[in-house]
Amino acid sequence: MLVHGAWHTGKELESVATSIRAAGHIVHAPTVKGNRPGDSKSIGLTEAIESIIDYFTQQELEDAVLVGHSYGGMIITAVADRFPRSVRRLVYWNAFVPNDGESVYDMVTPQHVALFDASAAERGDGSVMLPFDVWREALINDVDLEIARRTYELLNPHPLKTLTEKIALRVNPAEMAVAKSYVNGTEDISLPHHYPWHPRLSQKLGLFRLIQISGSHELCFSNPVLLARAIMDAGRD
Amino acid sequence: MLVHGAWHTGKELESVATSIRAAGHIVHAPTVKGNRPGDSKSIGLTEAIESIIDYFTQQELEDAVLVGHSYGGMIITAVADRFPRSVRRLVYWNAFVPNDGESVYDMVTPQHVALFDASAAERGDGSVMLPFDVWREALINDVDLEIARRTYELLNPHPLKTLTEKIALRVNPAEMAVAKSYVNGTEDISLPHHYPWHPRLSQKLGLFRLIQISGSHELCFSNPVLLARAIMDAGRD
Amino acid sequence: MLVHGAWHTGKELESVATSIRAAGHIVHAPTVKGNRPGDSKSIGLTEAIESIIDYFTQQELEDAVLVGHSYGGMIITAVADRFPRSVRRLVYWNAFVPNDGESVYDMVTPQHVALFDASAAERGDGSVMLPFDVWREALINDVDLEIARRTYELLNPHPLKTLTEKIALRVNPAEMAVAKSYVNGTEDISLPHHYPWHPRLSQKLGLFRLIQISGSHELCFSNPVLLARAIMDAGRD
Repeated sequence: MLVHGAWHTGKELESVATSIRAAGHIVHAPTVKGNRPGDSKSIGLTEAIESIIDYFTQQELEDAVLVGHSYGGMIITAVADRFPRSVRRLVYWNAFVPNDGESVYDMVTPQHVALFDASAAERGDGSVMLPFDVWREALINDVDLEIARRTYELLNPHPLKTLTEKIALRVNPAEMAVAKSYVNGTEDISLPHHYPWHPRLSQKLGLFRLIQISGSHELCFSNPVLLARAIMDAGRD
Repeated sequence: MLVHGAWHTGKELESVATSIRAAGHIVHAPTVKGNRPGDSKSIGLTEAIESIIDYFTQQELEDAVLVGHSYGGMIITAVADRFPRSVRRLVYWNAFVPNDGESVYDMVTPQHVALFDASAAERGDGSVMLPFDVWREALINDVDLEIARRTYELLNPHPLKTLTEKIALRVNPAEMAVAKSYVNGTEDISLPHHYPWHPRLSQKLGLFRLIQISGSHELCFSNPVLLARAIMDAGRD
Repeated sequence: MLVHGAWHTGKELESVATSIRAAGHIVHAPTVKGNRPGDSKSIGLTEAIESIIDYFTQQELEDAVLVGHSYGGMIITAVADRFPRSVRRLVYWNAFVPNDGESVYDMVTPQHVALFDASAAERGDGSVMLPFDVWREALINDVDLEIARRTYELLNPHPLKTLTEKIALRVNPAEMAVAKSYVNGTEDISLPHHYPWHPRLSQKLGLFRLIQISGSHELCFSNPVLLARAIMDAGRD
């Protein structure tokens, strides 16, 4: 199961899912509540998590590899915490790794907090958006301008409270019995390299498998085939 | 416009320029005052900068992408500060990123300062040279000995005062409206990796686009085609 | 001369040696005392070092490039300290770089110390083993499960005292006249990336040549041809 990041939906992971399916796997790519067309933008992290826990239950997933991108790391951590026996491995792809009581806001820079707060104040409906120049320079720095523009159009406003609300976990990731991997795009500067995804957040996993590939935060657009390969290597056992 | 680093001239960037021209761009690769044949080695940073500002003015460059290598980062920052409306993007290729009042000496290790001071004391004409073993091990670690020797012969003594004189800027890079990129060679240990080019200096740019490629500080010799590709990706919009 | 790491013997470096020999070099890959079949597991670092000093003497090696993997860094440092005129270059491949009076235990994390101490307490014969999950996730994260299992079977219990005993050196590596290189596998998380091999330990070499390749701590199994190429680049002059 692939869980998308902020501003995305499951749809944007379809190219990756297709590559993984071609190798014989069953792939789910649900959209988290708050990012679906028509969703209220005032929902918080708990409600977002519940929507994927419901999906996981309804689909009766077993022996699952959960892949979380960015904000999706919050979601997969919560799912594994709730269903430890149904999850085989957690794969964090440039994703947040929360301990109990932490929010996304606790793991980003003060500059990100200011940027998101300003966007929310301007929008007024509970959502935040990324300015295009941040998207183009810091999130999708490995494509040309046309692709950067086209993919920006796919983004949806993200509910701020999913970033500020603190997660409730029974067990922190390092103490979970489930196996863990971290997939790191070496040119991902969505979190700056002086305050990076890996190893700053990955080390919170305790023992984990590292897979690194070249690319930005948006490998789902810039190189879905390479990303699919990395995810399969990360989750192969 | 490509601006070379210390000990180099524009000539050593010709292979890179040729690759970029082949893609349809107009490329300038002037030599900074102090590194031209016959130049006095007692000149300082201000005079070096003025020589490229003069070049920029005479050529009537507009919508320019300025690429600075190493010490060349000092020069392009000053040019963009003087002509903010004529510069489209600054591309730092393993280059110094100065704020107002900083010198190259403020951004290197104490070991580099000692090395350069010792060389200047020995030479006595205001210039510094790199010992061959430093060149071979720490600057051009990705070629064979023959190429290391042949390229060492191309170097010219560098005016020390361009490294010690502090730059005067109206606006620091992070606050400049112009777009910025950083091209990082992942095996560049000319500044050691515990005190690196990226992200230690690149983060001074604020929002910037990162392009990484494999190679040493001297990709202009070891892989000019790959470097040209990286520079074009860094500057493509 | 290739010197293996903990839990290994020279045999596991045969694929690498074969590639290097194919390029025309003479390659020795002795097994350090304590890792040979039948060796006592109670020996310490001094005795382990002496076994390779004896080998070096008996083989009358001259103009040698010494390559040390991991724990093998302790051994090659000591050999160069004893025979400075017979060694042309030290190549550390994700290896420990000791100063006088340091042990492997001084350069690993507290978590490693606890892991090894627990293993030694359980085994009771002076040796330590790696749990399979640590091997698979943190040492050989770049192969499939079958190869991870098969190579795990090749490991031999390692004498703890070679990791706890402090080395005696006349000269520290940074002050040795011999040339030095560091080969770094960029996905090597046997030491975690927040407490890494490079640059944390490599910088103790002073001036050194960096060669980086993609791969885990066990490139001798996952990509011996690429590793051989890197070792030859590291040692080519």
